[in-house]
Amino acid sequence: MQTLPRLAITAGEPAGIGPELLIRLAATPLAANFIAVTDRALLERAAARCGQPIELIDDDGSDTAMRRPGQLRVRHVPLGTTEQPGTPDPANAHHVLATLTEAADGCMAGRYAAIVTAPLQKSSINEAGIRFSGHTEFFAERAHADVVMMLASPELRVTLATTHLPLSAVPAAITHDALTRVLRIVHRELQGKFGLLEPRIAVLGLNPHAGEGGHLGREELDTIIPALDALRAEGMDLLGPLPADTAFVPSLRERYDAVLAMYHDQALPVLKSEAFDRTVNLTLGLPFIRTSVDHGTALDLAGTGRGDPSSLIAAARMALELVARRSAHPQGHS
Amino acid sequence: MQTLPRLAITAGEPAGIGPELLIRLAATPLAANFIAVTDRALLERAAARCGQPIELIDDDGSDTAMRRPGQLRVRHVPLGTTEQPGTPDPANAHHVLATLTEAADGCMAGRYAAIVTAPLQKSSINEAGIRFSGHTEFFAERAHADVVMMLASPELRVTLATTHLPLSAVPAAITHDALTRVLRIVHRELQGKFGLLEPRIAVLGLNPHAGEGGHLGREELDTIIPALDALRAEGMDLLGPLPADTAFVPSLRERYDAVLAMYHDQALPVLKSEAFDRTVNLTLGLPFIRTSVDHGTALDLAGTGRGDPSSLIAAARMALELVARRSAHPQGHS
Repeated sequence: MQTLPRLAITAGEPAGIGPELLIRLAATPLAANFIAVTDRALLERAAARCGQPIELIDDDGSDTAMRRPGQLRVRHVPLGTTEQPGTPDPANAHHVLATLTEAADGCMAGRYAAIVTAPLQKSSINEAGIRFSGHTEFFAERAHADVVMMLASPELRVTLATTHLPLSAVPAAITHDALTRVLRIVHRELQGKFGLLEPRIAVLGLNPHAGEGGHLGREELDTIIPALDALRAEGMDLLGPLPADTAFVPSLRERYDAVLAMYHDQALPVLKSEAFDRTVNLTLGLPFIRTSVDHGTALDLAGTGRGDPSSLIAAARMALELVARRSAHPQGHS
Repeated sequence: MQTLPRLAITAGEPAGIGPELLIRLAATPLAANFIAVTDRALLERAAARCGQPIELIDDDGSDTAMRRPGQLRVRHVPLGTTEQPGTPDPANAHHVLATLTEAADGCMAGRYAAIVTAPLQKSSINEAGIRFSGHTEFFAERAHADVVMMLASPELRVTLATTHLPLSAVPAAITHDALTRVLRIVHRELQGKFGLLEPRIAVLGLNPHAGEGGHLGREELDTIIPALDALRAEGMDLLGPLPADTAFVPSLRERYDAVLAMYHDQALPVLKSEAFDRTVNLTLGLPFIRTSVDHGTALDLAGTGRGDPSSLIAAARMALELVARRSAHPQGHS
């Protein structure tokens, strides 16, 4: 029997649009066995707010060959307090973290094939007195893994050498070791998770025109080129450092499978401008597949049933695609 | 009689693809009276390399109501030495500068309605012992003007607070005075050259997520927001500072006429990835209209007749559009 992949879907912040997006996701005919890891009654209220019928089924860990649109399994994780849409309550911080823990541990134990996460409210968790800087860091710590953020659309995969740093701190963070670490993870994960035997990675320069031979900055000459050359000697197929402004033109895109940008605003504007509602956040380096929406909790829309599920659906599709690639190339996932 | 706008077209580096692009431009049916400011025999050789018939007419400064495709007026500026396609010769540096001088002075004297420039080879001019950092700076100095670079496609106009600086030098260059200076020029030119009575300018933050309230850098709070607020108090319609990664999504684009990016690689990758061969470089702040191709001399293609004229044609179209807008709103050009 061909069974459907068991995808754990976390609802994120109960007072955000996450629970309603899960209801919209369940209404699609996607060929997945979705297991909502959240509070069962929260889902019932979210379905009522969406005006969308939902059939909730307590998850017994079993496989199934089919799921009707509107069916959704639930791994119940109780709320700390009833949600007020639009107003996150720190009393639910431990609930949110418990859903992430269940999803991560369940993946590592083989109960789920992948995790798809809806947005959470970092500030509300911090207000509960918990040090927490985001999904990515939480999963990395839980899995003792060294990770890299990827944002991807069906047309473009972007990985980041630095993520949420002030711009003035970026140049010092671009070191030989950091580039080597990130590129090794990206290379390994393009093989293991994306099934690309010989992945081609384009690396952007730090400076405009990739430094123009040292006239517009020396980081390319002093750091980036030597790091790339050392990795090429190990067999990696690396293009660059490329000037960022022309790296995304169609003729160059044909020549790489993913881009490594040096910082956040060098590549994400391209990705989001062309695929805003189809951009998915992936965590590379984890021992499991994790995809996420690429937007926030949209507190102003929470409770209205009008949140746009496009990004969550895109994240679920991406997770399914990666599960399928892993199944096709199980040796790549070691 | 409705006469055609007299556009001065400079050929740039004689050994680059510029002369051949002029031949291709002349072959279009664009409703302009093109005046090639370059060497007449150079154009004849370029036409032969393109295999394209050309009818060269010495410019007598007169107006005309029509131009047949293939007709091109010439304002002869003699070469220093015969060009070798692909190999710039510093002996032609003074020739190149003489063409720019004629075009700029001719515009200021009213002999031309606008200038469109083909690419030059900065290094070859420098090798002739001449301090020269580019078209933009040359025209600014010639016209005693304070200028801002704009890159534009039919869908997006981007201006830059800093241009060719190493990334590490960018944060210190984003000062209250610099932003005020640039935004005043952009605002005035969107009115005067683009005919936008109340231009709406979106300003990007310097840091990712526009600093996220100070968590990812303080330049927005300390410098950018106060500068924008002071200009808003003068009546400018400014949006931002916006996070760069979401500033270009369609729903936001509807809300502005131009973007001010803080640095080169924050916005140009978006523009060039979506409109590579339709991107035009404009100089704002000059007392005349100047547009340019947004590519280099392509020395490897020079002499083959295979250079792509799309960007020069787009630059000519943009110049014509601006001439028409100025004619429609002559009061805005004061």
